[in-house]
This record gives sequence, C-alpha cells and structure tokens, in this order.
Amino acid sequence: MINFTYENPTKIIFGRGAELKVGEEVKKYSSKVLLHYGGGSIKKTGLYDKVINSLKQAGVEVVELGGVMPNPRLGLVNEGIKICREKGIDFILAVGGGSAIDSAKAIAVGVPYNGDVWDFFSGKAEAKEALPIGVVLTIPAAGSEASPNSVITKEDGLYKRGMYSELIMPVFSIMNPELTYTLPEYQTACGTADIMAHIMERYFTNVTHTDLTDRLCEATLKTMIKNVPIALQEPDNYNARAEIMWAGTVAHNGLLGTGRIEDWASHNIEHEISAIYDVAHGAGLAVVFPAWMKYVYKNNLDRFVQFAVRVWNVEMNFDEPERTALEGIERLKKFFKEIGLPVSLKEMNIGDDRLEEMASKCTNGGNSTIGSFVKLNREDVYNILKLAR
Amino acid sequence: MINFTYENPTKIIFGRGAELKVGEEVKKYSSKVLLHYGGGSIKKTGLYDKVINSLKQAGVEVVELGGVMPNPRLGLVNEGIKICREKGIDFILAVGGGSAIDSAKAIAVGVPYNGDVWDFFSGKAEAKEALPIGVVLTIPAAGSEASPNSVITKEDGLYKRGMYSELIMPVFSIMNPELTYTLPEYQTACGTADIMAHIMERYFTNVTHTDLTDRLCEATLKTMIKNVPIALQEPDNYNARAEIMWAGTVAHNGLLGTGRIEDWASHNIEHEISAIYDVAHGAGLAVVFPAWMKYVYKNNLDRFVQFAVRVWNVEMNFDEPERTALEGIERLKKFFKEIGLPVSLKEMNIGDDRLEEMASKCTNGGNSTIGSFVKLNREDVYNILKLAR
Repeated sequence: MINFTYENPTKIIFGRGAELKVGEEVKKYSSKVLLHYGGGSIKKTGLYDKVINSLKQAGVEVVELGGVMPNPRLGLVNEGIKICREKGIDFILAVGGGSAIDSAKAIAVGVPYNGDVWDFFSGKAEAKEALPIGVVLTIPAAGSEASPNSVITKEDGLYKRGMYSELIMPVFSIMNPELTYTLPEYQTACGTADIMAHIMERYFTNVTHTDLTDRLCEATLKTMIKNVPIALQEPDNYNARAEIMWAGTVAHNGLLGTGRIEDWASHNIEHEISAIYDVAHGAGLAVVFPAWMKYVYKNNLDRFVQFAVRVWNVEMNFDEPERTALEGIERLKKFFKEIGLPVSLKEMNIGDDRLEEMASKCTNGGNSTIGSFVKLNREDVYNILKLAR
Repeated sequence: MINFTYENPTKIIFGRGAELKVGEEVKKYSSKVLLHYGGGSIKKTGLYDKVINSLKQAGVEVVELGGVMPNPRLGLVNEGIKICREKGIDFILAVGGGSAIDSAKAIAVGVPYNGDVWDFFSGKAEAKEALPIGVVLTIPAAGSEASPNSVITKEDGLYKRGMYSELIMPVFSIMNPELTYTLPEYQTACGTADIMAHIMERYFTNVTHTDLTDRLCEATLKTMIKNVPIALQEPDNYNARAEIMWAGTVAHNGLLGTGRIEDWASHNIEHEISAIYDVAHGAGLAVVFPAWMKYVYKNNLDRFVQFAVRVWNVEMNFDEPERTALEGIERLKKFFKEIGLPVSLKEMNIGDDRLEEMASKCTNGGNSTIGSFVKLNREDVYNILKLAR
C-alpha cells in the first residue's frame, strides 16, 4: 500500500423523493443559480418542474442554460461562464448525467478565472478557486456527482481532455434511483461500462498489498454484475437501480483508489475515440478495455487471475493459470455483449483509417506514454486499437 | 435499500511519515490548540516530540492536557472545557486512540455550550456548534478518527453513553501504520474486535436488497481476518498494519451503513460491562457479540447463512442451512479466541452478580428496548449476558 490523502466532502442525499430537497440544499449556498442541463428528457419526465418548484419554494432565483450534449463541449462552457459573470450567479446546479455535471464543473472553475478555461484542461493552469456546484443525478455512469474530475471536448481539433481539482467536487448530490427508470437500455449499458471501467482502472495496479481496496473493488464490480441484468429486464426495479446508482458513486469517489497507483490508459484511449466519432463514452470503453487487457495481461498475470477468480467466479486452473486469466477477460467481454454493448470498433462503424491519428493524439504525438500498469507508447496504443477492431 | 444521507468530510492523511504534517494541517485552522492525549506511550515512542516539533515549526501554540484513560471520563472532559475557555483555545488535537479522540470531541462540543456537556450524552440537548478537531491516530479500533460519534463515561453511577453529531467529525486524521507497531498484542486484538463489531452492527439488518453494502462489509471483514494474524505474528509488518488501520476507518466512517438500518445492541450491552468493570471495550465485544448472535440468529437465518458462507467460507449446507449459520458464529468465536481475546464473561473475571443490573441499566430500567435486528428488552439482554457467561 502506498501513502495517500483522501477527502470527499460531497453530501449524498439518496433515495425516493430526494429531488424534492434540492431547493433547501441550494439555499444554504446561494439565492441565484445557473440551472444547467441537457436536452428535453428532464422536461418529459417531470423532473424539470419538480426542481424548478423546489427552487422557487426556497426563494432561489433561476437562470437556465440547457443544451449540454454527450461529450460536453467547450463552447457551451464559455457561454455558461459569460452568463454567470453577467448576472452575478454564484452557484451552478447540474441536473442530468456526467455531461451536465462536467460542463457545470468547467463553468464553476471558469467564472473566477482570468483567462481561458481550457487552460485547466490543457494543463496550462491549476484551479485556485471555483463556484460551488450541486447535482441532481439522472444517469449512473460518470461518477462525476462525487468526483474531482471534469472532461470537456474542445471543438477545434476535437480534443477531449480532463481536469482534476478538489475545488470542483459537488457540495451535494441528490440521487433518486427512480429518476433512472426511463433511461434507455443502451444508456444503462453504457453507464455500466463506465462504472465498471472506473473500478478496473484502479484494480489493475502493480502496487502490492492492497487487500482492502482490492476487495472493495471486487465488491462493487460484483454488485454491478448482479444488478445490471435485472435493471435491463425490469427498468423500474427500484432495488436494482439503487444498487447501480450507489455503486456508480462508490466506483469513482476516490475510496477504491486509496493506497494504489491507478492506470487510466483505457480511458485515455477511449477519449480519442469519442472525441472524433462522438460515440458514447461507455460504449467506447466496452470496446477498449478488453483489448487493453489482452495486450497487457502477461505483465502481471497474478492480478488478472485474481480478477477472474474473485470477480467472475472462474475456477482456478492451477496448472495453467494463464487460462484462468484469459477466461476472466472473456467473461467481461461476454457480459458487455449480453447487456447490449459493442465490443469491437467495427460494431461502432469505426474503420481503420484514423487509428494512427488517435494513437498519436493520445500520446502527444508519440512524445509521451499513457497508463501506469504498463506504460504505453504510441505504438502500443495503435496495437491496442488494432486488437479492438 | 432505504433512503439515506451520507457525508464524511474528514481528510485522511495516510502512510509513512504522515505525522510530520500535523503542524501544517493544524495551522489551517488555528494558532493555539489543546493537545489531548492519554498516558506515556506517545512519549516513549517519540511521537510526542515529533508532534510538538511539527506544531512549533508551524507556529502553533500548544496547551497540553494528557491523562485520558480507556473508557474516557467526564471529569477530564470538563477539565478540558475549562482550560479551552480560560485560554481562548479554538482547536483540539487528539493524539492517541478512540479514548483520546472521544474525549477531545466531548471537549470540542462542550466549550461553546452554555450548560453541562453531559446533556449531549444523556440526550437532553443537541449540539449546535463545536470547535474543530484534528487527530493523530495511534490505535486502529474505535473508528472515531472519521466518525460523528463520541462515547464518554460519567463517573457518578458509571454511565457510559454515546453522542452523535456531524459537528464532531475530525477535520483531518493523520494515520501512519508504523505508529501501531508498538501496540501490545492484546490491544491489537481488542481493536480488531471493535472494528469487526462496527461492521457487524451494520451487517445484521433486516433491510433487504443491500447488495453493495453487504459486499463492502464482507470485503472489510475478510481484510481483517487475513491481516490481523499476520500483524500479531509480525508486529512491524507495515502492510498488515496498514490494512487493519484503513479497514478500521472504513468500518466506521458511515459508508457501510448506507441504505441499511443498523443494530448496535451488542455495543449497548458491552457499554454496560465496561462501564462497571472497566474492561477493554473490544474484549467486551468479543464476549457479547457471539452470545448476541446465538440469541437472535433464528430471526433471520438467511443473513447468518450469508455471513457464514461469504465471510468465513463455510460450505453451504443446503439440507440444513441452520448448521451453516451456526458454523459461521463458531468461526467468529474461534477467530476471537485465536487472536487472544476472551469469549466469555468468566474469562474476564466477571461473575453473575450484576447481570440483572446491567440488563436494567441497558434498557432504561426495563422501560426501553435496544437493537433493531431484533428489539431486545431487559429480559433479552439478561438472557444474552447469561449466554455470555
């Protein structure tokens, strides 16, 4: 186990009817908020009206900025920053999934910054202050509701980049599993791949003696494996939806990474795919992760054997442990398939023509490596993308 | 899963050398602190000097109050409150285990309160404000380093009572596993029983569909079961000590209870034992918990079967699941024995003469019940104490 600092102050308000508390929670911080959301789904489901009423009752003035798209764009972030500055808004309320939250985080950190907010994503600047953010979550996936991360896509050049700062952890996140009943099957599945990927990016480490966090990771993965098929068959099964939603937060609130070195190569590779092709991040991960695994598993066979045995209940093959490891990877791939995800670039209609471009962008033109479980250079990334075809 | 609110803002600074950061962390809150600790052990190990130097380097003025005893007393709490008021101290730094931290919490909540601090423990008043508290942890056991709880014993009548308030969650806790190398075997074992009890008080619930938290509980218990015997054989095994220390925090920082109704009957019963006989809390728990289990297991056999199979790897007896459940309880008892804990009142030299008195005090003279997995009245508690003889 390596040294670590862990802090997660986000207040979670979880359960049936939780969204009705949004006004009361916001009011503790502000009387004038930017309500930031995506398309029309929150209006169709009635969530929009509930949120507006709760805010009104609490005496909170609302300025709206909708239109967040999946893989949220820098353009809208800059629009949000401008609105907040002009209208003296000091709190951002995101209603939606990871895209709305990540966009809200970027606005929150951009408002008090005297420069281009992209500086935080390009690594040119470090955030020193941010407006507080609140969340009403509708999609369990990104874990952004209790994470210090935001990922934004810059239209010019299609760069998708992340920033990290404890300043952008939401002050509260409201999570009602009922709000996820209306999620289309495909979106539930994409969220699943994202959640499982957040765990696996932490699970695959070369740090030894990580008993507690290994087992916490396995616990969270097993919870997903059990409950996702139930939620897909019964979209309004409260308990299955609740398990998935809470697992999505635990997967990415930092706990599972304590004392470990995390990897994140698969996420980096996927970002290049969804930046160019605008596919769902979760779908991209379902394609990349098994390919990454096949490319790297020999570097730490024991870890992949443990993954197979403990997470997927593969019977240990003591004579040929490699078979056990490979069977674990196969079961993950099979699980993704069964819940309706693509497991190859082909299934996403992505051809071979831009693989080299993606490998190059991902490694800063070949000048840097990604990942830590195995450090991958441009050629490695290209090979993984080829494996993912 | 039931609705819940979860919030835990304590910053954890974990690992080798972490104690050297104490001055820097304290300085963020205050320039004049009460340093609160127990006996001479922190002086013997050199920790005291390190803490004093770090505080001095950060320009923090220190007023000392040592002498905290296991099962910390109200008298010293009142002394601490008086000192803080007289000297204008606005931060309490606890260096030690649960007793020092619980005592510090009581002082922190007592200083700004215009009345008897015992009011918070007797349930007469609810805390409205508290001084901030910081911790340098030396004993993994109570989980007080990241919990909203404090347990204090009132000398007059030997009442041991707890209070709960999010105001008394430490702002930071510094945790260096090396600081636990010098813990005597018996204290390591007592801490183990306390940590495992914190998990089991949450695990045994009648709330259904608690997949994630069930598995997180099991993960944390299995980590303890693996690492405690190693730490007892090799007191300076960093990794085993680190797993135990971090598990002790995770066990009691609230996460494992999310979405569940917790029990706490065994803790309540144990408090009556240690209030009268001044035995180690963990030893008392090792005696009470298996007796409680035997008394209640038939009320929810499935849960005890799951505990046996998943935590203790008992092979499922499909014909007679009750045998599986009982084997799980036996394995817990055997584990406590093997790590050197008493598993009967007799082994703690406690006779039969005050069992009725304890059962009565525990249930408010027979007027209330304890626990929620099974609600226990005075007679039930008496029967459990008899089973524990």
